[in-house]
Amino acid sequence: MEEIKVGLLGCGTVGSGVYKILQENKNSIANKSGAKLTVNKVLVKDTSQKLAVDVEKDLLTDDFEEIINDSEIDIIVELIGGVHPAKEFVLRALNSGRSVVTANKELIAKYGSEILSTADENGVDIYFEASVGGGIPIISPLKEDLAGNSVNKIMGIVNGTTNYILTKMGQEGAEFDEVLEKAQELGYAEADPTSDIAGHDAAYKLAILSSIGFESRVNIDEVYIEGITEIAKEDISYAKELGYKIKLLAIGKEDEGIEVRVHPTLIPKEHPLASVNDVFNAVFVEGDAIGEVMFYGPGAGQMPTGSAVVGDIITAARNIDFGAQGRIPCTCFEDKEFKPQAQTETSFYLRLNVCDRPGVLGKITGLLGEYGVSLESVIQKGRSANQAVPLVLVTHKVKEGNLVSALDEIKALDGVKEIANLIRVEE
Amino acid sequence: MEEIKVGLLGCGTVGSGVYKILQENKNSIANKSGAKLTVNKVLVKDTSQKLAVDVEKDLLTDDFEEIINDSEIDIIVELIGGVHPAKEFVLRALNSGRSVVTANKELIAKYGSEILSTADENGVDIYFEASVGGGIPIISPLKEDLAGNSVNKIMGIVNGTTNYILTKMGQEGAEFDEVLEKAQELGYAEADPTSDIAGHDAAYKLAILSSIGFESRVNIDEVYIEGITEIAKEDISYAKELGYKIKLLAIGKEDEGIEVRVHPTLIPKEHPLASVNDVFNAVFVEGDAIGEVMFYGPGAGQMPTGSAVVGDIITAARNIDFGAQGRIPCTCFEDKEFKPQAQTETSFYLRLNVCDRPGVLGKITGLLGEYGVSLESVIQKGRSANQAVPLVLVTHKVKEGNLVSALDEIKALDGVKEIANLIRVEE
Repeated sequence: MEEIKVGLLGCGTVGSGVYKILQENKNSIANKSGAKLTVNKVLVKDTSQKLAVDVEKDLLTDDFEEIINDSEIDIIVELIGGVHPAKEFVLRALNSGRSVVTANKELIAKYGSEILSTADENGVDIYFEASVGGGIPIISPLKEDLAGNSVNKIMGIVNGTTNYILTKMGQEGAEFDEVLEKAQELGYAEADPTSDIAGHDAAYKLAILSSIGFESRVNIDEVYIEGITEIAKEDISYAKELGYKIKLLAIGKEDEGIEVRVHPTLIPKEHPLASVNDVFNAVFVEGDAIGEVMFYGPGAGQMPTGSAVVGDIITAARNIDFGAQGRIPCTCFEDKEFKPQAQTETSFYLRLNVCDRPGVLGKITGLLGEYGVSLESVIQKGRSANQAVPLVLVTHKVKEGNLVSALDEIKALDGVKEIANLIRVEE
Repeated sequence: MEEIKVGLLGCGTVGSGVYKILQENKNSIANKSGAKLTVNKVLVKDTSQKLAVDVEKDLLTDDFEEIINDSEIDIIVELIGGVHPAKEFVLRALNSGRSVVTANKELIAKYGSEILSTADENGVDIYFEASVGGGIPIISPLKEDLAGNSVNKIMGIVNGTTNYILTKMGQEGAEFDEVLEKAQELGYAEADPTSDIAGHDAAYKLAILSSIGFESRVNIDEVYIEGITEIAKEDISYAKELGYKIKLLAIGKEDEGIEVRVHPTLIPKEHPLASVNDVFNAVFVEGDAIGEVMFYGPGAGQMPTGSAVVGDIITAARNIDFGAQGRIPCTCFEDKEFKPQAQTETSFYLRLNVCDRPGVLGKITGLLGEYGVSLESVIQKGRSANQAVPLVLVTHKVKEGNLVSALDEIKALDGVKEIANLIRVEE
């Protein structure tokens, strides 16, 4: 049996998971890949540092040159994260004729085009299943199993931290800040949680999925991004009363232009994504032939993400074995237009604080009507002669631009104290 | 761009879906497969018969020899179903050096070993994604993306007809027979529904999934099979009261021996499979690295199943393009033992009809205790001096053999009129 040698860049959480899986399941992996897979070198920051996994001392190096110059290494696995020096390492690996596996969503979202074409020019593989949805198979199903479809919608819960926070806010009736703190204690949120809670992490993943699904490059700058920091516990309870749950969704649609957006969203409680709780992830895909399909599982973690990386390593090894490197091409065959956010159409949940006096609701609905916005539900609670009371509205589908114009006027109405929140609704 | 030619065997529901997808999405499919895919011949029973799709008249033939002797054809797609002559056609195609794609679960479940080794001997591909879960990608994720895992559990709703019936029984409080009749009217159940409602269809699919997941051949004869015909509406309502739903599950486990069984099952209403309703399918996989992952979607139908078949055709074409036929080997590397059904361990739901008098419950629980069966819940409803009343018990986990022995004695107890139903419970 042939031996295929792997160079690991990084041995943190995911790296140590990958190392562990390659050791523990080595016989079965050899059978499946048709080759004995051996880790030949592991790049770490400091070779004296204690690792989460037992790696033979002499495999460790703190010098990338030792890996790129090791002519025995066939596959380089990038797990250091971030853009620099990951990008340089990946490009050098590809240019040196090595196949590359990476879990780096930021890198692929920002430099996918350059990286995929470098792989193509060199006739080698670049696989990045672990960059979206942790262990959940989603990139390879999109590129291969669903390849017969024209995909028109991708909708996913692709960030575990925010899904955990929203789940707990719903279950415990707690406010965002309290739950975030608890999530940080439990290790579900980073010390600096910005990338997660502001929606950037989800946006990277959406850019990757949409580029594949819609067969056209989606740059991260095209993604409209809104995080979950403005979600209040009352929004979650009003949503519940209306039959919805609030989730941070990454949504890509293609219909006379691509729209890509990450934002908190009300979805009906019967929707399969509504019951995806805690740190779990799920991606829902709609294609012209398949209809609707959903992939659900752990979106992060040492072993699940390791599972996706090892799956890619096995595929890359098998391709080397069969001389079939470069089998799966970049799928951005087209150059589609994007739809401006103002042109996108959704329903909206609106929470206003208004003075409780006759005529206010009438003025609001009148103004909405002038901009073509009709209402599906209205909740008005509490009565108070002095204080503002909450007014919750759910609109029918409307062009976002129209709603924004209507709100500009509504804000200025006498009797409207504030527009407390505005959340999109998807069916 | 190279041209790769396809011979279609069968142009019924799935065949016409495949033809349609290959036509409608041909540009994108050509980009993805690296070759122009053309249907060169279509085998039908009667060339004068009207088809569900517009196929050029001169592609039609009623003679398999015309297809096997067409030297232009590279890939043969078997969609006629059943064992004969599908098996002979598939083997001849493989032996003639053609790659084969099939949607035939019965064929793969019964003759997978022979078919996969024939493909291997000829250095060609055999793909059968559509044989399980219709359009849902599950076989390729198991064989490739999850290849790093040692899989210990596969649990799925893999038959749409029975899932539709159980869903409607639950929603409408209706009996099995009424719902079956309605399902037949709607085309969700066949005129002869035996293969679905008796669990055979699910068993074929389980044999296929388990062979892959556990890396050891699971013959259909090894699968314990129980259908849904004995499920009464009161079982569904008691299950609901206890916090469960009843689903026909296909369950494979590996833990000191393989157990494979298809039977109605109580699962907690929070389990992801519990909310898979109507004709939808879902397969839940547990592996040592990934943890839990679920694949959900349409388990049947012209276009969804066509989507899976076309995905396979694209992969087979790409392999031809890269000279990489036979990339994905048969994964039955081992020869594992099976666990006898009496040795399997689950919890049980028991519904008895008993005389409503002092001491009966005591005698029953006493006998269960003697066989090591302890109880989690008891529901006893109604009071009647003359008539039997229902007694519902849910046990803790127990070896099936022990429970059966206990029930033999319980049946004979004075005061026990009948054991009305016995349904396994999975967590």
